[in-house]
Amino acid sequence: MKRTIDARTGLEVIDPDECRRLLGGDVVGRLAIVDGGTPVVFPVNYVLDGDAVVFRTAPGTKLAVGPRGAVAFEIDDIDRTTRTGWSVLVTGRLEEVTEFDGATLERVKQLPVEPWSGGDTPHWMRLVPSRVTGRRIVGDG
Amino acid sequence: MKRTIDARTGLEVIDPDECRRLLGGDVVGRLAIVDGGTPVVFPVNYVLDGDAVVFRTAPGTKLAVGPRGAVAFEIDDIDRTTRTGWSVLVTGRLEEVTEFDGATLERVKQLPVEPWSGGDTPHWMRLVPSRVTGRRIVGDG
Repeated sequence: MKRTIDARTGLEVIDPDECRRLLGGDVVGRLAIVDGGTPVVFPVNYVLDGDAVVFRTAPGTKLAVGPRGAVAFEIDDIDRTTRTGWSVLVTGRLEEVTEFDGATLERVKQLPVEPWSGGDTPHWMRLVPSRVTGRRIVGDG
Repeated sequence: MKRTIDARTGLEVIDPDECRRLLGGDVVGRLAIVDGGTPVVFPVNYVLDGDAVVFRTAPGTKLAVGPRGAVAFEIDDIDRTTRTGWSVLVTGRLEEVTEFDGATLERVKQLPVEPWSGGDTPHWMRLVPSRVTGRRIVGDG
């Protein structure tokens, strides 16, 4: 497999197909939202709907502020012993899926995404990617 | 130990002392920076300098954009099998530690923070917290 190393950072660039595969293989990531100029990061339990990242939420910052601007979603897997790992970053717009888009709402409601917390999470959110990038720490060796 | 549950989210609130202990117990977190209105998230290898989060970086977004506004730093530990976990979020200002603050620079240079990637990371960055919060998923049980 061809490897592309970013000379500035020393990190390997993960190609879009591999980013997509990694996103499909995890269930928890971190949503970053800008709230009044300050970034806020929340772990969320997600699934993919095509290329979109779908999760459920309670009323709060993710629902109120998320759709106002660009958001980011990050997953990673870091091995603290071998000091290796990778991360994938999705950037795009967050939208609430409502009955105004009934077909999408029916589809996402079939997705296997259950809230882990005991709270009520009636809102379905969908992050439509505009950019997906990934990088891998290949180690000093 | 007294537990505080956020009724809206169903998540347990982690008190500041415990947040500080958790931050001291990990070595990798995720820095969120706002770049032109869009959040960007980078895993970074860090250590604490008192309450400040210290890491090294190469020239790039973290160095160029980070000090311009508020940033966030997140650590978490998620168990995908038991569907439990916690996260801690630090919000504050990011500054490069330079020779203009020689005492701090000398101190942080003694800290055990080595870059994991092979890239050159000559810049020392310090995130001075203005707010530290934590939440724990206690499960449906």
